[in-house]
Amino acid sequence: MSKRSAPTSDRGFDKDAKARTPQSTFCFRCIGCSSVTPSAAQDFRCSQCGNLLEIAHPAWKSGGLDASSLKSLWRERRSSNAALDLSGVWRFRELLPAPASGKPVVTLREGNTPLYELPLSSRITGVARLYAKHQGMNPTGSFKDTGMTVAATFARQSGCRWVACASTGNTSASMAAYAARGGMRSLVLVPEGKISWSKLSQALDYGALTCQLRTDFDGCLQLLQELVKRAPVYQLNSINPFRLEGQKTLALELLEQLDWQPPDHIIVPGGNLGNSSAIGKALLEMHELGLIPRLPKLSIIQAEGANALVRTLRETRGKRLVTVQAETRATAIRIGNPASWEKAVKVLQATGGACEQVSEIEIAQAKAEIGAEGIGCEPASAVTLAGLKKLLQQGFVKKQESVVLVLTGNLLKDPDFTMEFHRGELFSATERESARLNPYRHPPVVLDATLDAVIQTLEQAEKSEKSDTRSNA
Amino acid sequence: MSKRSAPTSDRGFDKDAKARTPQSTFCFRCIGCSSVTPSAAQDFRCSQCGNLLEIAHPAWKSGGLDASSLKSLWRERRSSNAALDLSGVWRFRELLPAPASGKPVVTLREGNTPLYELPLSSRITGVARLYAKHQGMNPTGSFKDTGMTVAATFARQSGCRWVACASTGNTSASMAAYAARGGMRSLVLVPEGKISWSKLSQALDYGALTCQLRTDFDGCLQLLQELVKRAPVYQLNSINPFRLEGQKTLALELLEQLDWQPPDHIIVPGGNLGNSSAIGKALLEMHELGLIPRLPKLSIIQAEGANALVRTLRETRGKRLVTVQAETRATAIRIGNPASWEKAVKVLQATGGACEQVSEIEIAQAKAEIGAEGIGCEPASAVTLAGLKKLLQQGFVKKQESVVLVLTGNLLKDPDFTMEFHRGELFSATERESARLNPYRHPPVVLDATLDAVIQTLEQAEKSEKSDTRSNA
Repeated sequence: MSKRSAPTSDRGFDKDAKARTPQSTFCFRCIGCSSVTPSAAQDFRCSQCGNLLEIAHPAWKSGGLDASSLKSLWRERRSSNAALDLSGVWRFRELLPAPASGKPVVTLREGNTPLYELPLSSRITGVARLYAKHQGMNPTGSFKDTGMTVAATFARQSGCRWVACASTGNTSASMAAYAARGGMRSLVLVPEGKISWSKLSQALDYGALTCQLRTDFDGCLQLLQELVKRAPVYQLNSINPFRLEGQKTLALELLEQLDWQPPDHIIVPGGNLGNSSAIGKALLEMHELGLIPRLPKLSIIQAEGANALVRTLRETRGKRLVTVQAETRATAIRIGNPASWEKAVKVLQATGGACEQVSEIEIAQAKAEIGAEGIGCEPASAVTLAGLKKLLQQGFVKKQESVVLVLTGNLLKDPDFTMEFHRGELFSATERESARLNPYRHPPVVLDATLDAVIQTLEQAEKSEKSDTRSNA
Repeated sequence: MSKRSAPTSDRGFDKDAKARTPQSTFCFRCIGCSSVTPSAAQDFRCSQCGNLLEIAHPAWKSGGLDASSLKSLWRERRSSNAALDLSGVWRFRELLPAPASGKPVVTLREGNTPLYELPLSSRITGVARLYAKHQGMNPTGSFKDTGMTVAATFARQSGCRWVACASTGNTSASMAAYAARGGMRSLVLVPEGKISWSKLSQALDYGALTCQLRTDFDGCLQLLQELVKRAPVYQLNSINPFRLEGQKTLALELLEQLDWQPPDHIIVPGGNLGNSSAIGKALLEMHELGLIPRLPKLSIIQAEGANALVRTLRETRGKRLVTVQAETRATAIRIGNPASWEKAVKVLQATGGACEQVSEIEIAQAKAEIGAEGIGCEPASAVTLAGLKKLLQQGFVKKQESVVLVLTGNLLKDPDFTMEFHRGELFSATERESARLNPYRHPPVVLDATLDAVIQTLEQAEKSEKSDTRSNA
């Protein structure tokens, strides 16, 4: 164990800056039968009915959380150098489960992600007030970090030595990093050959024991469920309700960035549906606590090839999950049996959001448009812009409304997709033409190192851009 | 041009939050003959002697910059939602060149990077107060963004349509993103086959015209110098002095994180030497303005295969550049003819820092150790930890001193290096053994999706870890 690190946190030389302990208390509540317990079994399922658990905060009922004071407190903390305040998650600790007194928080200074304007996409869609909340700017490059800091903190507090997850890649990268930071070992179950090289490299770099299983994501998840009953490993999959608590802070941070004026719409990619559940939970809690005057509509977009929630809503009205054989190049949402589907259905109903699906070409085009804004995201993130276009066509979103797209992962998570797109290898020529992808394709050119060759290439680019402009005019 | 975006910035719905214009004024000063001019030619070289220019701030001499007021002001801005204040660069705008009145700043909310404790590396090196400033957490994943926001702002202000750079990868990614954000086109010259796939994918995603030239980095740079004299493109290479001004903010932000208590040592990777020059300039300016009571020693570490500065100091005492044929897997510093070598020599002399070189195996080992802290960096960043070990052996750094390592790029910038290392493909078995790399190697295993297979793997990992612990004890 000589190479494992002691738990620590992001701070300066001031060793005496002790993390203040949050004051809230919490319990577990079943999303099915609503039964409440102070603790949960290792599978995080209800002992009565087997459904998923969520974290509830009964203490809030007794008051003491004043909206205006909370807003001031959270803002003040932005100028603090204390470890908990520097985290974009723990800065909002009044709305999170509190670790036991004196127990350390495992943090990599997650959250604090930018909210970008999207002038190009605004022109394309006609939505003037269009923004991207880029969760791919988290420490390991995806939104998973905001949940993992909370779940890893509680895993460590439970005294476990091993943590584990099944993953399409982002969760394993995040878990491995937080496990390393918290002095724990991590076990990663990923589908063989179906996750990006970059995400796999992260798990290895952070010291995870990485098993590539000859199955898909859903197979990995099923095996993990059995494993936690047989071996002493702590489950850090998205059914771990502590993760969703951390992911709530996306919505808190977003609303603070908007000076607490709710946008009309928030649009999020739908994979395992933990993220949409978390954001929805945050919105409902914020509304209940008086932090926001009204609820934004939270909409969920899936890839056509991994459209379990879309079909569940269309075919059973959300009463029974319709699973699918997932297939999409947006690997982060290639999930056919989403664990948090019931939570997501509730969130859609509570906020009045929509659920849509988009094609592979629509995803690639949207990703290139976001890239042309100077903002790099992974393919799964781009379903939000592609979905917005559909929701506009359907009249569900109106051009004068304000819209926030949640980008969940960094461009660098999947460079292969980008390279193949620009080299013209992702789709056939006919598909590219019909989808008008060409203006966004910039294939690299290989040249001799001569001035003439470079100047000629520059002039050609000028010419073709002018002809693009004329044909688009 | 329909697909190009208008200049913009990161902000919320408050469209009226106008960026306040910084008040400082500046000029160009030659680092050779010290002649001063209000403007610079396109090659950013002195018209008198041909040496590099730097930005000077003569207005500071007349006072008006009170150290204590500046510190308060910069800290207050951390709780602001205005675009300029949200940038970790422009927050320190009193020490930066000011754009012309009313001209917009091109920003992606760069800077604001974490300072991490390194408990594992502390145990390995014996340095208790050891920290990493992780510039790989910038928007495009490297320190280049902090300089590019300033240089792109001035490029845009100059009215240019095209910007260009020669690059080993990180500069091109950053330039392409900021060009896109500022509504400009970008031309990237990279050496064919010698930059990472991930970095190339970024340039393409952000819409750059990307030329892979059949030469090395130094050949690309030379061609760019000729190009800017012949074609209307604005040079954004590291000899652009606006970039170094932005990169200064690393030191400002670091010192703020340390409550303005200077560490004893700052250690930085040395490639083109722009970054060390910028950090050194910042330290000297901070000292001059009374922001810090004493200067940290700034040390520069190179790869053995790209050790131009090391040889320059040893063979000519820093009087004449010794160029080398660069070869290292740390691609971000694979540069044999560093443009800013004279600036770097001055900084080493002024701060009393050292210059060292490290081997490929030392780099790989240090990178794995940083990874095991839950912190992902690219190989070039890891030369800092490898270099620290050497400087400790030589007695230049003492264990009781405080040390900050500057990590310049994100793990995701070069996943291939990580994969090859963990799969045992980077070095021969003999080299691995002699370098004791094995405890940090975690090769992925491919398994059938059965519970027994996973449990067996878990048990084996436990056993081998126990035997590692015994053999290390």
